[in-house]
Amino acid sequence: MTSSPKYSGLLTDLYELTMAAGYLDAGFDARATFELFVRSVPPRRNYLVAAGLAQGLDFLENVRFSDEEIAYARKLPVFVHTRGDFFNYLAQFHFSGDVWAMPEGTVFFPGEPILRVAAPIIEAQIVETFLLATINFQTMIASKAARITQAAEGRPVIEFGTRRAHGIESGVLAARAAIIGGCQGTSNVAAGYQFGIPVYGTQAHSWIMAYQDEAEAFRRFLDIFPDHAVLLVDTYDVRAAVEKIISLGRKPRGIRLDSGDLAADSAWARARLDQAGWKDVIVFVSGDLDEERISSLLGEGAKIDGFGVGTALVTSNDSPTLGVIYKLVEIEIGGEVRSAAKFSAAKVTYPGRKQVFRFSHPDGNLAHDIIGLMEETFSGAETLLEPVMMGGKRTVPRTDLDAARTRCLQQRARLPEPVRDLNSEAAAYPVRHSEKLEALLEEVRRRVQHAARS
Amino acid sequence: MTSSPKYSGLLTDLYELTMAAGYLDAGFDARATFELFVRSVPPRRNYLVAAGLAQGLDFLENVRFSDEEIAYARKLPVFVHTRGDFFNYLAQFHFSGDVWAMPEGTVFFPGEPILRVAAPIIEAQIVETFLLATINFQTMIASKAARITQAAEGRPVIEFGTRRAHGIESGVLAARAAIIGGCQGTSNVAAGYQFGIPVYGTQAHSWIMAYQDEAEAFRRFLDIFPDHAVLLVDTYDVRAAVEKIISLGRKPRGIRLDSGDLAADSAWARARLDQAGWKDVIVFVSGDLDEERISSLLGEGAKIDGFGVGTALVTSNDSPTLGVIYKLVEIEIGGEVRSAAKFSAAKVTYPGRKQVFRFSHPDGNLAHDIIGLMEETFSGAETLLEPVMMGGKRTVPRTDLDAARTRCLQQRARLPEPVRDLNSEAAAYPVRHSEKLEALLEEVRRRVQHAARS
Repeated sequence: MTSSPKYSGLLTDLYELTMAAGYLDAGFDARATFELFVRSVPPRRNYLVAAGLAQGLDFLENVRFSDEEIAYARKLPVFVHTRGDFFNYLAQFHFSGDVWAMPEGTVFFPGEPILRVAAPIIEAQIVETFLLATINFQTMIASKAARITQAAEGRPVIEFGTRRAHGIESGVLAARAAIIGGCQGTSNVAAGYQFGIPVYGTQAHSWIMAYQDEAEAFRRFLDIFPDHAVLLVDTYDVRAAVEKIISLGRKPRGIRLDSGDLAADSAWARARLDQAGWKDVIVFVSGDLDEERISSLLGEGAKIDGFGVGTALVTSNDSPTLGVIYKLVEIEIGGEVRSAAKFSAAKVTYPGRKQVFRFSHPDGNLAHDIIGLMEETFSGAETLLEPVMMGGKRTVPRTDLDAARTRCLQQRARLPEPVRDLNSEAAAYPVRHSEKLEALLEEVRRRVQHAARS
Repeated sequence: MTSSPKYSGLLTDLYELTMAAGYLDAGFDARATFELFVRSVPPRRNYLVAAGLAQGLDFLENVRFSDEEIAYARKLPVFVHTRGDFFNYLAQFHFSGDVWAMPEGTVFFPGEPILRVAAPIIEAQIVETFLLATINFQTMIASKAARITQAAEGRPVIEFGTRRAHGIESGVLAARAAIIGGCQGTSNVAAGYQFGIPVYGTQAHSWIMAYQDEAEAFRRFLDIFPDHAVLLVDTYDVRAAVEKIISLGRKPRGIRLDSGDLAADSAWARARLDQAGWKDVIVFVSGDLDEERISSLLGEGAKIDGFGVGTALVTSNDSPTLGVIYKLVEIEIGGEVRSAAKFSAAKVTYPGRKQVFRFSHPDGNLAHDIIGLMEETFSGAETLLEPVMMGGKRTVPRTDLDAARTRCLQQRARLPEPVRDLNSEAAAYPVRHSEKLEALLEEVRRRVQHAARS
């Protein structure tokens, strides 16, 4: 086994490399434009939140093939007859294209491109797999986090799910995406280190179990973290544990409930802590939470100051994929520009380089979006896609996560009520295509039908 | 932003570090034993397949805290009053414990420990998050792959899902776990490079769309990959595309269908290819497949030689988490060994160091398992947990993926029919606890109840 660097060109599907060899061999010197978008929202989602751009751009700036990786590719059966030109090409490979994208934290809708790549076709293809994997995942998590933080009605939500994420890197990136969707922090220390995200934690059941006596376990933790101790009270018996803490006479930062009847126990604990004169001791709750459970707890009169959310958040468990796709929309060969679209089996992909135009009501609330051609203008509309990379170099600073989070929360607040509502299924925000885009689609449809018949 | 190495000690939840500081400060010098297991199988799973051990052991052998990471930890608000001893401890941190585990590819059941860590309690806690994340994920994917490959009834299944995985590393690890669960290869080239897995690919719709003429797109690909071309025929019209390929008069390796009526089109294509004298041209199928869809296609008379499976496989979409947990089962303090268990709210964790004993019928088929104490013996039983690391060093070679795959497929074949059956919900394989283990549980229960009352 050899280790693969973070920006290895091999982080792609084999067909991207075979097609690359094919284009090169055929002398097919085209510049292609691909757009990345979501075809439809999963159940229980009315809007999505763009995330993952920073990691996508990191990859585009740094992707390379090492000598060892090229030696590996050369020995693959499929490349046994492939000419050396291809491997020389890989040795000097870097991404030289242009990228436009929606800033992270932007609220968007199905069919709207969130990223556009224009590059020599081989480059645009080789980076497809990585861009899809990172943007599909983080966008899915940010979108789930936006729902969960909305359910919490302003109470802090901390991402607690690394152990249930799809591998450790997935946990780190989920923590990042959760912040964009409105979470306040994470338990993942590496995510804190890499992205400057606030990190939080309490204590595990194993801490309590490691001591013969539960009160002793609490006292020890208070000794060491007098200002930060959030004590876990459900290892044996919640109410007995709270009484023990009160008997110690040393005020913790808070208590955590992780199982049992969270509504009843939180309300009881709040009352008991208040009675002890500890009104500022927080009641923190975790344990298989999601937006529905949080809403229902608050509806039942739970008294909760903050939520730790794990599995449901980091796996988007009710819908663990978004189906982000990356489609060819334009190709330029020998100076001739041709728009491309796909029409198979009820799935239509619109051609051409697009822009998303967003219209607001006078009160600032969002009214509707128009997906149009890049060169169109609509007065009074915001344009959502902006240039972020030219000639393979970033033209914007790295994403500021606080700014992305604020963008998400502000845009969420501007959504029409039925679209924002957690319980309204399939409340569609109005998005239409511009007349020019519809006309281009028809033009391409006629040309493609002609080609298919020929 | 700083990059975090693959084996950073910060790849953990904050509470593991605060508890570490707590144990150190309290001079709590205990050796703890934790066991990792799944509490219950998700819906539509009757058995699970162990995977991810190799990446877990890699981490245990290599985990360290860099100076820069320690400087970061030192500045966290929670550690503001923490003594320098803790940071000195982190600077020399390495894992020195012993590990027992089931070999990858082992078929197992809820409640059975698949990994046991015995180490100084601080070490055992700090590595918890990583072990859970990698073993939870890969075990979930291997278990899903075992169902999907079973549905394919011996036809090759290729993992095609990187772009829909939860980030790029998740895609690489999903490819690895899919092999353990019986897949034959992956489209992920980095997974091929890192793990020696066979890589496969065909061509994308964008290749077809890049040419004005579909036949020209096919001809070009055949020119370059005469022995390996699997041509994608659903960009415009499947049947017209197959006719174009036959008209070219050059036999491809196969054709791929990615949308439409896969059963009808595959049967039509098979007949048409046979009629052209191309009986050895394969019909490969992809597009939102899972075990149910594969079973139903084959039931409908589809003529398919191989499957490419993406999203459902790499996200385990019908159940995107396994709920693997890591529980304290024994602790040794000052020479005194104490078994530990947890009894909260209907969740019981059995105490003590355990072994899984597997009994077979005379014909080799599996009969039942007993979860017992490590020191027990049962004549005629296989023991599933074996030592894999002593004093922080591997005592076994790295997982041979072919051997793990063979182990999984052989054990799956030995399962009782109702447990193996894809459609039988909740057919429970018989697993019981030994009398000695039940007795130990009762002993610990009495002690814990006493402690909780005290």
